[in-house]
Amino acid sequence: MKVSSERFLRDLHELRSFGASGIGKGVVRPAFSDADIAARKWLVGRFTDAGLTPAVDAMGNVFGLADGPSLLMGSHSDSQPEGGWLDGALGVIAALEVARVAKETGGPAISVVSFQDEEGRFGGLTGSSVWSGYSDLAEVDAVADYDGVTLKDARSGIADMVTGEIDPGQFKGFVELHIEQGLTLDAADEQIGVVTEIVGTREIPITFTGQQNHAGTTQMHLRRDAFQGVSAFNTLLNERLRNVVTPTTVWTIGHVALHPNASSIVPGKASFSMQWRDGDAERLRRIEQIVRDTAEEVAEARGLTVYFGPMWELEPTAMDARLRGALERGAEAVAPGRWRRMPSGALHDATNVARLMPVAMLFVPSIGGISHAFEEDTDEADLVAGLQVLAEAVTALND
Amino acid sequence: MKVSSERFLRDLHELRSFGASGIGKGVVRPAFSDADIAARKWLVGRFTDAGLTPAVDAMGNVFGLADGPSLLMGSHSDSQPEGGWLDGALGVIAALEVARVAKETGGPAISVVSFQDEEGRFGGLTGSSVWSGYSDLAEVDAVADYDGVTLKDARSGIADMVTGEIDPGQFKGFVELHIEQGLTLDAADEQIGVVTEIVGTREIPITFTGQQNHAGTTQMHLRRDAFQGVSAFNTLLNERLRNVVTPTTVWTIGHVALHPNASSIVPGKASFSMQWRDGDAERLRRIEQIVRDTAEEVAEARGLTVYFGPMWELEPTAMDARLRGALERGAEAVAPGRWRRMPSGALHDATNVARLMPVAMLFVPSIGGISHAFEEDTDEADLVAGLQVLAEAVTALND
Repeated sequence: MKVSSERFLRDLHELRSFGASGIGKGVVRPAFSDADIAARKWLVGRFTDAGLTPAVDAMGNVFGLADGPSLLMGSHSDSQPEGGWLDGALGVIAALEVARVAKETGGPAISVVSFQDEEGRFGGLTGSSVWSGYSDLAEVDAVADYDGVTLKDARSGIADMVTGEIDPGQFKGFVELHIEQGLTLDAADEQIGVVTEIVGTREIPITFTGQQNHAGTTQMHLRRDAFQGVSAFNTLLNERLRNVVTPTTVWTIGHVALHPNASSIVPGKASFSMQWRDGDAERLRRIEQIVRDTAEEVAEARGLTVYFGPMWELEPTAMDARLRGALERGAEAVAPGRWRRMPSGALHDATNVARLMPVAMLFVPSIGGISHAFEEDTDEADLVAGLQVLAEAVTALND
Repeated sequence: MKVSSERFLRDLHELRSFGASGIGKGVVRPAFSDADIAARKWLVGRFTDAGLTPAVDAMGNVFGLADGPSLLMGSHSDSQPEGGWLDGALGVIAALEVARVAKETGGPAISVVSFQDEEGRFGGLTGSSVWSGYSDLAEVDAVADYDGVTLKDARSGIADMVTGEIDPGQFKGFVELHIEQGLTLDAADEQIGVVTEIVGTREIPITFTGQQNHAGTTQMHLRRDAFQGVSAFNTLLNERLRNVVTPTTVWTIGHVALHPNASSIVPGKASFSMQWRDGDAERLRRIEQIVRDTAEEVAEARGLTVYFGPMWELEPTAMDARLRGALERGAEAVAPGRWRRMPSGALHDATNVARLMPVAMLFVPSIGGISHAFEEDTDEADLVAGLQVLAEAVTALND
């Protein structure tokens, strides 16, 4: 099946004209913005031109349907408030090109999707979450963005596009191409990453409480300094995790809030986020134990109390062996020796779709690992390589 | 000279009726609030009744002047937004009682002062800063509080009280009694602390800048995490200071701000306050070198850049040997074996007054080390001990 890299790149660049930031190739196309809705209308036209049947559900997920049972491919075309041109758009346009060629050449039945609000104006992966039945639209409708606009209000902007519900039963599986959004492929000068699993995430808000005091009059040995607790916890945790983690395990303290957060006051309270991700559920559990034990030990040793908030849990999502195998063979054909198997550290729509059907994912490099920024980019040769792997895989899956 | 502990305590309790919080003995009496102005008017009356000549300068500092050259005593009667009943009020009322008895008994000439805005609604130690000539009233007039009210606006509330400038040349020295606001005396079950010096302070805002990244897709060895920089700096600094500091040296990271401060994003920037205090200027300088070297080493090792903001410097203020000696002999007479020499870790009006004349300070214990809170308190026996030491000292100084 011979895809057209020219047509693919032309569509990809045309899509970035919707919400073009004027800075590099960046786009400003958050879910339900005028630019996002215009892009979705343009997609409906492109799907129609490709011989697919356009369909839009109440959430604003836009499908281009092949006749009968089909393989679903795609990603999302909404962007971060300051986003890159590729992110989810790449997966949608690559799917469009593969589906179009398949239609033109009598190839396999390929349907295309652009999920809505993957970037989380109203939560996170909102469109695929609702479509997969994980979230209830009536409930999510009440969620408001930072400006107080609810999803229900925002959805009124696409009311004229909605055709009805799209039955997941018609799809045999889902394949999503995406940029890596990390440095692994770029640093290794590789073109393709075949995703083994989307890693699971755990996150616990932790608060140390000590004694707020005057920073001039309180001697060091009498202090119960909550920030010192965070620092000691962090240092000890880094040491202890060393023997438990793999090179792909990640852990992050990204949010810290001291109280009263004043230079002349010994912090009486320090709240922070403790997040970790790994592809193995058992390792996630072992790390949780170390996090809790370490925080309790540090609190005990320093006269602090420790409070653990509710843990946010997201299980690892395994990729389907058959779909993944087809992608691996495609990768070896297109980029021999220049591809790898790797976990996805980021969440993707495939996480939600996996509730309904077999899924697989493919990565192409992000230059400098940069994403969610106007500077986000990928070598066009790598974009085309990703497209070609998809085409190889769907052909093989159809054999 | 026989002071009256009953009259002293009655005045002290009456003063706390101005702005009484209704929670414990707490007061809400920030500078230029209705309660503060009412309290200052009450002080003018008390000074008059004591045979002193009341005088109020444009800043709202309220004096009760003895005739001719005199020793000045006092502190401040404004409070924190949620303050304790003693803080500066103790020093003002103790000075009033000593001056009153001196007047009644033909003792030494004692003048009394309540400085305005020690607690810093418009800066910090504002009243004594302006009176000592360290700050220019016209400049400070433009400073606004958190609600946008300028000092100039606030001062209009006391315009009818102002009598004119008060010449510092009439005072032979300044003695300030204050609560310790720390745990040292309370923990040692001692009644009196004679201040050796008001410690110097250094504070540098420090910023580590790394690379903001996705907390799921950025492998640990590729991260340049600014929060990890702060934690590593803190750990290393604590180790290195161990051989440099004395038991009274203190250092604090009280303010931390991460950017973007989100649980799923590797912090790209971390700004924090690094403050240290010590009575010895040379030690302050050595610590500064260690702070700067350590931050630079940590930045270098972790691929971060480090930025040092302008350093805030306040030199240590030595207490006058003669005044301090009189307080020490008074302490030994009133509380034999239950007093100590100690530095003041907090700033006080005496720091500013020292620009004009010899100064000395006396502490009484703070129960549990608590201050700047409604719970602030001191055993009444200790309050009276402080009053008696002042009386002993002024008598001795007059001999």
